[in-house]
Amino acid sequence: MKKIDADITTPKGFMACGITAGLKKSGKPDMALIAGEKICSAAAVFTSNKMAAAPVILGRETIAGGKLKAAVVNSGNANACTGEKGLKDARAMASAAANLLGCKENEVLVSSTGVIGVPLNMPKVLEGIEKAYGALSEDGGAAAARAIMTTDTFPKSAAYEEDFDGKKITVAGIAKGSGMIHPDMATMLAYITTDADVAPEVLKIALGEAAKLSFNMAVVDGDTSTNDTAVVMASGAAGAAKIDSIRHKDYRKFFDMLLALCTDLAKLIVKDGEGATKFIEINIQGAASFDDAKMAAMEIAKSPLVKTAFFGSDANWGRIVSAVGNSGAAFDMKRMTVSIEKELIFEGGTGRDADKAKLKEIMLQREIEIFINLAVGEAEATVWTCDLSYDYVKINGMYTT
Amino acid sequence: MKKIDADITTPKGFMACGITAGLKKSGKPDMALIAGEKICSAAAVFTSNKMAAAPVILGRETIAGGKLKAAVVNSGNANACTGEKGLKDARAMASAAANLLGCKENEVLVSSTGVIGVPLNMPKVLEGIEKAYGALSEDGGAAAARAIMTTDTFPKSAAYEEDFDGKKITVAGIAKGSGMIHPDMATMLAYITTDADVAPEVLKIALGEAAKLSFNMAVVDGDTSTNDTAVVMASGAAGAAKIDSIRHKDYRKFFDMLLALCTDLAKLIVKDGEGATKFIEINIQGAASFDDAKMAAMEIAKSPLVKTAFFGSDANWGRIVSAVGNSGAAFDMKRMTVSIEKELIFEGGTGRDADKAKLKEIMLQREIEIFINLAVGEAEATVWTCDLSYDYVKINGMYTT
Repeated sequence: MKKIDADITTPKGFMACGITAGLKKSGKPDMALIAGEKICSAAAVFTSNKMAAAPVILGRETIAGGKLKAAVVNSGNANACTGEKGLKDARAMASAAANLLGCKENEVLVSSTGVIGVPLNMPKVLEGIEKAYGALSEDGGAAAARAIMTTDTFPKSAAYEEDFDGKKITVAGIAKGSGMIHPDMATMLAYITTDADVAPEVLKIALGEAAKLSFNMAVVDGDTSTNDTAVVMASGAAGAAKIDSIRHKDYRKFFDMLLALCTDLAKLIVKDGEGATKFIEINIQGAASFDDAKMAAMEIAKSPLVKTAFFGSDANWGRIVSAVGNSGAAFDMKRMTVSIEKELIFEGGTGRDADKAKLKEIMLQREIEIFINLAVGEAEATVWTCDLSYDYVKINGMYTT
Repeated sequence: MKKIDADITTPKGFMACGITAGLKKSGKPDMALIAGEKICSAAAVFTSNKMAAAPVILGRETIAGGKLKAAVVNSGNANACTGEKGLKDARAMASAAANLLGCKENEVLVSSTGVIGVPLNMPKVLEGIEKAYGALSEDGGAAAARAIMTTDTFPKSAAYEEDFDGKKITVAGIAKGSGMIHPDMATMLAYITTDADVAPEVLKIALGEAAKLSFNMAVVDGDTSTNDTAVVMASGAAGAAKIDSIRHKDYRKFFDMLLALCTDLAKLIVKDGEGATKFIEINIQGAASFDDAKMAAMEIAKSPLVKTAFFGSDANWGRIVSAVGNSGAAFDMKRMTVSIEKELIFEGGTGRDADKAKLKEIMLQREIEIFINLAVGEAEATVWTCDLSYDYVKINGMYTT
């Protein structure tokens, strides 16, 4: 597979747009519409937060059919904790888009991101949907990526292409990450398009597995939003063979593209984490199980003590090792090792005289890899996180409602 | 029971001191010795971190006998992640103190707090133990409280007295909390003395239960240290009836004193949390179980988004409600309520028009209580935490090793 510079309207059979509905005070684009030319095979994964927002509650119903014509997304207002009215508003958004697109209400997935607890301004939303329908185009992918941003500092997009028996298959996606002008929950949204032909039940398995190894391995601050959503739409427009089973010969190839794409988007979200000055990849090796490896990596990734040490460019192995000790994962203290990039800093149950100048140089990098071998098994996991800076406190503490 | 202004040498049968062994570069006191006139009944609880420091590994052995003559504590060096030498050094500390005190090595509990991964300077430590032995006195409790500090900004002490059938029983304790000059793990240490006569097995149950409802409900940043230790020594010197069973008529009275004391010490630790500007008490009511109530309270207490909102004096109910949604605890979204002090801010699944001026006034207080009713049961839990400020990032990010 090849990474390409493209967006979600590059796969055949898709149109998109990003427009200004007027929900953001800033006047920046705040509505995206992503539509298949025809009804697409589709799958989605949603937040595990039990306080799920209205569009997520509706979205779980919508995606049950495995078919989508379109996804409509507004930024500036999360339609979360908005009670019965919130659910009614989400349905009205789906209904308005369905009427324009000539499809059923349950073929339109609705997402919202932004301030919570405030009812949507429905006249503006409905007017926006009409405007968005009129703006749909085959090169609207980049505009859609911008329209779903909240305080993201850059639009997030990635794409891969691959040959499937002479047919070029493209998988592309856009995402938004954490950061709000209004103090709010972080929300992760991702929209993925492909012109591969994949049955809904296969797409569901592929997205679930890819999300587990990508979005679910990305941590900014350990809070899971009420609105998190990742959706994939497959148009089949490339004309390649239909992947109707996970045993189909092309399944692995498609899955690898989807996983690479989701991994790229997850990393972009972490790189644009609130106040982030550093991107940290935590690789756990030698674990007893994937769950153990993930637990250890997550405990490190979420530790405020580890995150502030990285902000301060301090190669503090004590905090890393202590987080492993807290994680619940099995390890062999005497055989366990910790390295920052290629510098071994912990072995034999204690710190190791590392090259301090070399370590300092590594710790000043914008991107840093940590390797920890728990020395009790063969399982591995990789988690991506960012540091905890003054700006994180500023962004989340200083802009008051 | 009555809260009194006293320290750990107020209960009869105890001596203590705080001296300078020379382990801290600052020259501040860095060694405490707390000794019973006779062998005491004793119990201790230790960190759940699997990467336990040498004194904790040794301490678990020591306390198995249920008897202590003394506790010797050094600050400035945690003797953590120090391999086999660390364990040997901890044993040498116990042995040196035991020789001076005329007791067995396994009747001396050793604790260390401070920088990790650095071997103890044993000549200074052993010289310090001799000096400490010479300095033991019946009014050395306050000096001991100061000698166990690292970057604590004030010494932490509390005491209660109560009449037990005409005998005055005192329970007193000192503690240290989180904060290091060297960037390091937070360590919680607490030493409790009482002149009640309590059998070791009863003391063990009482301390375990009291710690569960006090120290284990206190959160600064969610990291559990490698060195956490709380120990109680009962001299029996007040001459009251021996509490030899949890069914003894005085057990409840003694437990209530111990719990009140541990709660006071836990709150003092949180109030002196790294960079803390606010003390927050999170009360969960109407939970399905104590575990559920604690999970919900802890998820709120550990959330960087909630903690930064409190730093910014922002009554952000969305972040609180989202943390509950993430916690795994059962709740009824429609009947759940959230109040900050007496201001109801969330009910019926959405925000409530609260008095904004009144809320702002509350959020500017140094101490704030939150009440959340999950509306699914009768269980309750209370957790204490602090906010997340620029100074937390500064303390943990800017002092590099």
